[in-house]
Amino acid sequence: MDRVASLRRVAFKDGEFDGFLIFNHANLIYFTGFSGAAALLISKESKPTIYVYNVNYQQAKAEGKQFIVTLVRRSSDLLTLIAEQVKALKIKNLALDAVSIESWQVLAKKVRDTTKLKVQGSLVSALRKVKDSQEIEFMRKAAALTSEGMRVAYETLAPGMKEYEVAAEIEYAMRKSGSYGTAFETIVASGPYSAFPHGGCSDREIRKGDLVVVDIGATYKHYRSDMTRTIVAGKPADTQKRLYDVVKKAQDKALEAVNPNVKAKVVDAAARKVIKDAGYGQNFVHNLGHGVGLEVHEPPVLGPYSKEVLAAGNVFTVEPGIYLVDYGGIRIEDTVLLQKDGVQKLTNGPYLLSKE
Amino acid sequence: MDRVASLRRVAFKDGEFDGFLIFNHANLIYFTGFSGAAALLISKESKPTIYVYNVNYQQAKAEGKQFIVTLVRRSSDLLTLIAEQVKALKIKNLALDAVSIESWQVLAKKVRDTTKLKVQGSLVSALRKVKDSQEIEFMRKAAALTSEGMRVAYETLAPGMKEYEVAAEIEYAMRKSGSYGTAFETIVASGPYSAFPHGGCSDREIRKGDLVVVDIGATYKHYRSDMTRTIVAGKPADTQKRLYDVVKKAQDKALEAVNPNVKAKVVDAAARKVIKDAGYGQNFVHNLGHGVGLEVHEPPVLGPYSKEVLAAGNVFTVEPGIYLVDYGGIRIEDTVLLQKDGVQKLTNGPYLLSKE
Repeated sequence: MDRVASLRRVAFKDGEFDGFLIFNHANLIYFTGFSGAAALLISKESKPTIYVYNVNYQQAKAEGKQFIVTLVRRSSDLLTLIAEQVKALKIKNLALDAVSIESWQVLAKKVRDTTKLKVQGSLVSALRKVKDSQEIEFMRKAAALTSEGMRVAYETLAPGMKEYEVAAEIEYAMRKSGSYGTAFETIVASGPYSAFPHGGCSDREIRKGDLVVVDIGATYKHYRSDMTRTIVAGKPADTQKRLYDVVKKAQDKALEAVNPNVKAKVVDAAARKVIKDAGYGQNFVHNLGHGVGLEVHEPPVLGPYSKEVLAAGNVFTVEPGIYLVDYGGIRIEDTVLLQKDGVQKLTNGPYLLSKE
Repeated sequence: MDRVASLRRVAFKDGEFDGFLIFNHANLIYFTGFSGAAALLISKESKPTIYVYNVNYQQAKAEGKQFIVTLVRRSSDLLTLIAEQVKALKIKNLALDAVSIESWQVLAKKVRDTTKLKVQGSLVSALRKVKDSQEIEFMRKAAALTSEGMRVAYETLAPGMKEYEVAAEIEYAMRKSGSYGTAFETIVASGPYSAFPHGGCSDREIRKGDLVVVDIGATYKHYRSDMTRTIVAGKPADTQKRLYDVVKKAQDKALEAVNPNVKAKVVDAAARKVIKDAGYGQNFVHNLGHGVGLEVHEPPVLGPYSKEVLAAGNVFTVEPGIYLVDYGGIRIEDTVLLQKDGVQKLTNGPYLLSKE
């Protein structure tokens, strides 16, 4: 309920809004701690209302005692029930975090005589960007589980294995250690597929000398983590070592640049300069990083066009890469926590191009 | 490209639309076979255009040869590039499958002098509801992997294990057999949590005599599967057996009612009657089933208020359940394929309340 209080403080302070309607799934978990709500209505003073379908109703009553739990009998009822409550609470200016055009049109019509609607998702994003101590605890745990998965990746990966067989061992290790599931689809992308940042995980057999990008994440109590190492199956070639050193140096320079009040694009530029100076500027085809939390990609983004300024409490990835089509790719990624006195890696593991 | 041709046939036939813009992630995979597109624009005759960010550009060029691949440099460019192409193609009436209110407002403004927009997601849903032979092949494979996971669930589950430890063994078995990942968050909900249909999977230790709802799904080449068995850890009590028999009979009756041209709500009613007659009508708190495919929940829905009529090519779940708060729950679920000559189970496994 601290989080509801924080949203009230920022959203209602200057009178622009007197109600907030949450539809986004991750935002619903953020405010309710529960994954079964269909919507949440927050007004200035009343107890917030969560709307749940019958399938989740008993669970919501058990787990959502700080909320009014309203049963939604059919999907067509949801917007009707919300509109009734908006009117009963005399909400005049209702902010929404996110909504489809269809729901917007239906809801706007139902409350047209009483209430103005406005999408204002950035207010919730701004709260979620700064993790509280409970969130940091969960993210440390998710990151530790991810690091354990990466340890097993190094232990397991060998020429002759299929990509998905490596993924099986990694995911099993994370799960047995207490992960709630993968934070995203595990990537074990070998050989030519390593040149595609989202190269997936197929039944391709890993060959001796292949670059293999291993990009994995565990979850813990809804919180995610994200970590990449690039591993050569067998003995690395000189070019592979040289490229690896460039990417590692880019990550180091970025981490040196991270500090509270630093612009995210400055951190991106620090990494990008290293890669550009080495002659691979065109081959670093994505942003340096992204926020992580309840979602694996969330604000703040760290890229050349980012308008974000980093702040203590941010958790994000630092993941430079070089991708050479028909040759292969190398990416190194950690999830890090920014605190007022500097940055700390949450994912941890050696930076080895090979176990040999 | 057959699927693009099918959409053109239904969407453009009477002249209501002369362009279709796809944003939904699963719809993008459906039409492109590729998971990295940000949008797809289909006009009457030109080659369709996929819009991709730099991170996926090389992969899209390699895998999307039937499409014009347009590079999106920054997120703010996407709607601008689409608007330019809509104008260049002289599209007057553009259908969209789904869109947020913000994107709708920006796009509508950019094309206001030339093009009308309308959300028309049901046209794509109607295509996706009827699986083609390749989709059925992938879904058979996903279902076989899921059935293997359930075999391991029976083999593994025992008093003293934590819920997530059982999940670890199930997911590992599916992955090693070739699953691309879980179709949804695995549910191993024991004891009181089994009474919540979405009871999750925690570190609770399973106790002797607990009802344990095991709801799992593998994926294969983006296609999903969904299967539930309820297992007692140890020797089942008489009440557990009696409840189980009611749920099993409800599934049997529903499957008997499934046929092409039958209303989905009639199938739901067949199962619901069995449970109601046994005195548990209030405890069957969800729909009988849902379509499965690229998404684990997609049309058609099989519920009391469903307006769907079943047709050959539909793949959906049949999953009656009884949930008794403070006692426990029982659900039995299979993913089935409806063909012109009847229904076939894709997931397969014995209906056992216990391995004892």
